[in-house]
Amino acid sequence: MTEYADAGVDIDAGNRAVELMKASVRTTRTPSVLSELGAFGGLYSTEGLGPGSVLVASTDGVGTKVELAARQGAWRSVGADLVNHCVDDILVQGARPLFFLDYIATAKLIPEVVAEIVAGMAEACRHVGCALLGGETAEMPGVYTEGSIDIAGTIVGAVHQDALWPRLEQMAEGDLLIGLASDSPHTNGYSLIRLLLDAHDGDHLMEWLLTPHRSYLNDVDELRAAGIEPKGLAHITGGGFFENIPRVLPSHLQAEIALGSWSVPDGFRELVEWGDIDDYEAFRTWNMGIGLVVVVDPAQAATAIDLGHRVIGRLRTEGKQRVELVGDWR
Amino acid sequence: MTEYADAGVDIDAGNRAVELMKASVRTTRTPSVLSELGAFGGLYSTEGLGPGSVLVASTDGVGTKVELAARQGAWRSVGADLVNHCVDDILVQGARPLFFLDYIATAKLIPEVVAEIVAGMAEACRHVGCALLGGETAEMPGVYTEGSIDIAGTIVGAVHQDALWPRLEQMAEGDLLIGLASDSPHTNGYSLIRLLLDAHDGDHLMEWLLTPHRSYLNDVDELRAAGIEPKGLAHITGGGFFENIPRVLPSHLQAEIALGSWSVPDGFRELVEWGDIDDYEAFRTWNMGIGLVVVVDPAQAATAIDLGHRVIGRLRTEGKQRVELVGDWR
Repeated sequence: MTEYADAGVDIDAGNRAVELMKASVRTTRTPSVLSELGAFGGLYSTEGLGPGSVLVASTDGVGTKVELAARQGAWRSVGADLVNHCVDDILVQGARPLFFLDYIATAKLIPEVVAEIVAGMAEACRHVGCALLGGETAEMPGVYTEGSIDIAGTIVGAVHQDALWPRLEQMAEGDLLIGLASDSPHTNGYSLIRLLLDAHDGDHLMEWLLTPHRSYLNDVDELRAAGIEPKGLAHITGGGFFENIPRVLPSHLQAEIALGSWSVPDGFRELVEWGDIDDYEAFRTWNMGIGLVVVVDPAQAATAIDLGHRVIGRLRTEGKQRVELVGDWR
Repeated sequence: MTEYADAGVDIDAGNRAVELMKASVRTTRTPSVLSELGAFGGLYSTEGLGPGSVLVASTDGVGTKVELAARQGAWRSVGADLVNHCVDDILVQGARPLFFLDYIATAKLIPEVVAEIVAGMAEACRHVGCALLGGETAEMPGVYTEGSIDIAGTIVGAVHQDALWPRLEQMAEGDLLIGLASDSPHTNGYSLIRLLLDAHDGDHLMEWLLTPHRSYLNDVDELRAAGIEPKGLAHITGGGFFENIPRVLPSHLQAEIALGSWSVPDGFRELVEWGDIDDYEAFRTWNMGIGLVVVVDPAQAATAIDLGHRVIGRLRTEGKQRVELVGDWR
């Protein structure tokens, strides 16, 4: 955690935040971490990376979910959201996380809030063996609205060049799409959710809405341990099914999604009803219960089903749209 | 540049921003970059990293300088600020930059503004051979005040484990401190500057105030090419001389700074006068004309002077304070 005086306003609060977060950060140390908290930059040994390694890096925020978290004081969960979102973003390229750095900015720095966010990030990092290597906290009263906070993070992971996903050349018509369940809307579609909550009583949905983004690293490890060799993974984030699935398919293949092949969680059902939202908009905005889509050879689907997952669609060549929803989920 | 729909609000503006920034980002590609713009995560080959390499990572913002930049529309310069600040933060550990990722968030996304910021970042990246590997842009009207924008960035560099700075065990009483000139207040002390500008006419200082943070990588390369082997570098950022110099010294040594050994830029003189600011506060808030302090053996000082730099102090053992200002700069 680096320079707090950068933001110039309340150095004491910054320093107290650092003190409070130290214990959390320490729990994420891995043998490759060479630096102590407070160094200019975090140090990470490349010793453990074999030849042919590729670094995979991604920066992300959690979007307007921070507003809901602020309203409910759910800081710990939004810290986990950020890490898990990042973990999944590089997982779809085959990478395992090495380290993570955070940026937390707000109008008025409250050390206890920062410490809670960092505790949530640290817990999520530990869960996947990722080091929380550094970060920055800024206090900027003119930029952020009162009581608001924004968090962003950068993850760096590694994968062998021969193990990168997606493997477009292996994908073929008839390959099946396995859906891995989401835990909540994760970190997407919260602007719309906020609008819907303004007009409806959503208290009973709050716990679900604030459930962190699921980290799929362990799920994917489990699939592989069972003998499944995914050809590609799509992380269902902003843009939903329509924008994320095509990103991992070769141009000659399309995805057909069989609505009704999984049970859409009640929370999404209510949101859709409140907003009278059509399927295209719903599956473009939310994950609708599926946070990760895995492309597998048809012969491997039975194993995935044994592990509790669903076949939610297939790859085909005859379609006009890159992603087509067929059937009915209602 | 990754998912724009995350922020949920204006996907078209996000996509247009991506289109506008593509050309800039492409100019920063290095042979190690394996991914295309729009991948889930950026891919960077470790092929060029020798055995014993250590990754050095740092996340930073530019603090309240963004507010001044917003007022003046100086987006390009603030993009360069962010990159250069990060470059210097890992340079003091000996690292050369490999890649950079950005986070840009605002109440209302204006594609042309985002493109300008990214153009500034790309230019600064090119200057030091750093790839702009990815980023995220978010639109969050409830979190950011109208017209405001915040930017944060993460840099990852590399250094051989035997070439890490600072080299505390080499430092000794009598070592000299070489000061490398700053180009402006860089990215620190802008909250105080903003307050002073509210009460005084600072138009004539604006160009200087918005001059980007200087990237010292090439300056340090020049020192080394001339035969100077620095024992440590201190990046004068938030906390000024008092917080940054001690971070690179062993506990038994203190720094004595000879005020008057360099000419403090007129802009700082005016700011100090406007605020009737004492030396302790001035040298804790601003760089006062020195952006990087280099610890060298006394025998190497002449070479540094030949290159146009100044000896601004020395290391000693008899002091009570970790950093003491002696003499007068006025």
